[in-house]
Amino acid sequence: MGNVLMGSEHLVKSAVASGVEVCFSNPGTTELPLVAALDTVPGMRAYLGLFEGVCTGAADGYGRMLGKPAMTLLHLGPGLANGISNLHNARRAGTPIFNVIGEHATWHLPSDPPLAMDIESLAKSVSGWHHTSSSVEELGGDAADAVAASLKGQIATLIVPQDHQWNKCADSGIERGKPEAFDEEPIPFERATSLLGSGGKAVLILGGTGLQKEGLLHAARIKTLTGCDLMAEPFPAHMHRGAGLPNLRRLPYFPETAIKVLGAYQVVILAGTPEPVAFFGYKGMSSSLIGDGQECLHLAGGRGVQMALRNLADALGAPASPDPGILAQLERPALPEGPLTVAHIGAVLASLQPEGAVVVDESNTSGAQYFKLSGGAPQFSLLTLTGGSLGLGPPCAVGAAVACPDRPVINLQADGSAMYTLQALWTQAREGLDVTTLICANHGYNILKVELARAGLSADGGNTAALVDLSGIDWVSIGRGLGVPSESVRTVRELAASLKRALSEDGPHLIEMLI
Amino acid sequence: MGNVLMGSEHLVKSAVASGVEVCFSNPGTTELPLVAALDTVPGMRAYLGLFEGVCTGAADGYGRMLGKPAMTLLHLGPGLANGISNLHNARRAGTPIFNVIGEHATWHLPSDPPLAMDIESLAKSVSGWHHTSSSVEELGGDAADAVAASLKGQIATLIVPQDHQWNKCADSGIERGKPEAFDEEPIPFERATSLLGSGGKAVLILGGTGLQKEGLLHAARIKTLTGCDLMAEPFPAHMHRGAGLPNLRRLPYFPETAIKVLGAYQVVILAGTPEPVAFFGYKGMSSSLIGDGQECLHLAGGRGVQMALRNLADALGAPASPDPGILAQLERPALPEGPLTVAHIGAVLASLQPEGAVVVDESNTSGAQYFKLSGGAPQFSLLTLTGGSLGLGPPCAVGAAVACPDRPVINLQADGSAMYTLQALWTQAREGLDVTTLICANHGYNILKVELARAGLSADGGNTAALVDLSGIDWVSIGRGLGVPSESVRTVRELAASLKRALSEDGPHLIEMLI
Repeated sequence: MGNVLMGSEHLVKSAVASGVEVCFSNPGTTELPLVAALDTVPGMRAYLGLFEGVCTGAADGYGRMLGKPAMTLLHLGPGLANGISNLHNARRAGTPIFNVIGEHATWHLPSDPPLAMDIESLAKSVSGWHHTSSSVEELGGDAADAVAASLKGQIATLIVPQDHQWNKCADSGIERGKPEAFDEEPIPFERATSLLGSGGKAVLILGGTGLQKEGLLHAARIKTLTGCDLMAEPFPAHMHRGAGLPNLRRLPYFPETAIKVLGAYQVVILAGTPEPVAFFGYKGMSSSLIGDGQECLHLAGGRGVQMALRNLADALGAPASPDPGILAQLERPALPEGPLTVAHIGAVLASLQPEGAVVVDESNTSGAQYFKLSGGAPQFSLLTLTGGSLGLGPPCAVGAAVACPDRPVINLQADGSAMYTLQALWTQAREGLDVTTLICANHGYNILKVELARAGLSADGGNTAALVDLSGIDWVSIGRGLGVPSESVRTVRELAASLKRALSEDGPHLIEMLI
Repeated sequence: MGNVLMGSEHLVKSAVASGVEVCFSNPGTTELPLVAALDTVPGMRAYLGLFEGVCTGAADGYGRMLGKPAMTLLHLGPGLANGISNLHNARRAGTPIFNVIGEHATWHLPSDPPLAMDIESLAKSVSGWHHTSSSVEELGGDAADAVAASLKGQIATLIVPQDHQWNKCADSGIERGKPEAFDEEPIPFERATSLLGSGGKAVLILGGTGLQKEGLLHAARIKTLTGCDLMAEPFPAHMHRGAGLPNLRRLPYFPETAIKVLGAYQVVILAGTPEPVAFFGYKGMSSSLIGDGQECLHLAGGRGVQMALRNLADALGAPASPDPGILAQLERPALPEGPLTVAHIGAVLASLQPEGAVVVDESNTSGAQYFKLSGGAPQFSLLTLTGGSLGLGPPCAVGAAVACPDRPVINLQADGSAMYTLQALWTQAREGLDVTTLICANHGYNILKVELARAGLSADGGNTAALVDLSGIDWVSIGRGLGVPSESVRTVRELAASLKRALSEDGPHLIEMLI
């Protein structure tokens, strides 16, 4: 308690005491006392990312798997800026993350040294909680507060001037930071019961932890009793899928399709997901996907959603177990034959993925068929691109593999998106993480080609064509250059053989699928 | 004038009319009307970066070479966030850049779609001017205002909701945006004259455009008359060097050395550079590098510095041409023999770089000797890491090559820094840019090892060791994977042969120097 320690040591000690076990970092000079503290204080393991987006994406993957925060340690404003894009995805996923950003010494900052910038403005753009420490004595308490804040399902960013890190004190207020209980929002059981009993066709849209096993099974109990449909939010943070679980459709991406699908229901109940809106605004279409004549009820959000689903099922008098008929049977697609197509890629993965796999899906247009084909696979976790900010996949796979070293991680990954954070492959190699990266190499920003057509804009002009074309990338060379055994496949047979081999060996692999 | 055009077309037309010729972009759905306008409005050429830090770093390199802005076109908050790190370097360089960021349609944004975030907070962290457009009618004027603002030597960021892009109107106020004249700050000639004539030993520290030919030669005239010393700011944005120019020392990086060097002077005159401060704060050292007993005068800043130097030289009655004895003679180091060391790398480059080369130096610890050795090379441009934010080099080389297609560009590049923005190699390959990248492959964050030692912190702990070690990167594979002919060298002889070959061939090359 009364140990005289550096502020950096108080911070790390407090974080460890709060349950933080790993730190994804790319540090600089202003974080060195914290780097040293990761060795002088036991209990935390550091992982280097060669670009900060790797660190934040890894923290997101880790947090999605374990429901508790990793620490990041990033260098000043530029380091935080590089991490913001994946922090944005984490924010939309509701992932707990404990960011620590070094700052110039308090007495040095007013001289406006070259690396000085407005860190607080950057921090607030993605953080539910952010704070700049006011003294060494506060650092232990600040860290405990930050971890507690993150456990509400948000990003907590602590900015720490370098002098607070290297100054010493005896006690730094570690006792702060009691996490609040789950969301206190009242659950509208009566209204839900009434709507589900109204005779109107109803759909229960699940999101957040409502898509994990316990939530899914309670939702299936409700379906068993009321006959409502179940659906998943469009971009789940961490969804459990496979045999023995209800096989949920995801709300479609394009608004006209989503509106049509939802239009079949008089009642929409949301559990762990916000009211569905169009991903982008399109001329002549509404933002909301729910019509004026539809009843829409928000049942619960955040971390209380599993409990809310259980309580609702109980309140309705649903059976203790769902009707087995609404749970997916173990049923994998047959291995197809022929060239690699979007459908064939999905079938190969769905037919070969092992039980307990963690599938990080940032395949965008190339993964369109995989979801449908994988509902009968042995149970697995699916992590998707929650915030639409490209470059989540490879870092998220790093974090998932660190969180769950006994589970195989498979990253189904679009090539254009992978280029944003390809540095993550190096961390996979350095740490020997069991990640198989399946690169969907279509050599284009195909979603933009689709969106150009939707907007009635030509893709033929020289500038437009240049801006959607990615040709000339050799992923096998890149993967090997970053230390990951890599190979390229052109047919279903080659892919199946390569994927089987990758899954049977430890450590990372990359398979470039030329489609 | 009265043409009915889409807002996106008004914007591009206005930017072209203001002199903008290139756009470095990584667009998304919310920028597609602007992408289309790059084809329907003639006059601008688009270059794709596979990560936004490539686009902003390229715009920095382009602006440093030509003194006028490139446009960037980036996707929403995450796209801007990915570009901030290199925008920070550009801000410190005083580079004009015209950023355009797409935003959700005004009527869609309130629904908080997944990609929505606080773009203005991100923009203000690096922009001297930023604005969110208020209607289609304003877009032409907004673009003209932004370009004019950028020409003051700053970043101008225009955020454009998608409906403003696709809406149409006849005239969009293109007449706005008169750039202001050069800095109006009064030049303290009398005080400068008095200090230079005081008999106290004086140094003139040059920065900004003061380090380009005209500024250097007027400074040399002042030195010829007064005997003052000349020095360069530590991290020049764009410095002219070589035979026929005064060979300036750069102010050292570490504060104790810089204080010692500056301590020899009673008078310090600053032209185009802020008062020098320590890069980082160190325990027991001051931020300022200038002591209480020293006279320090700020002569001029921004774009007025060349004129201020000429006027001061004239006012002092300096000769029209400097004493030839203070200008560097053409004198290259002999090609050394033996293994690759930091000194040998510098000697090889200084002895082989062609006249008119643009050297982008982000070599950090590995380039320590090159600067000293290259003062007698044929005249060339030197661009350095102005803001300390890693990952400038490869993108900056892209922009310099686009700006000056007839000049060979050489990127002397630290490996750790290169990993931040290695995607730039792909743009070099796609565009056939004449860039030779010399990777200093020391496989470590060596500056952090130095800083750990300075701070008295151990580098031996497992976490610390992991966070400063970069081993396992094969740059030849990576370069080839991104389309750049690449090879690895271990000796001076191999490096010289490889560099000669690269410089004799068009297009990009990468040479991994194993040191």
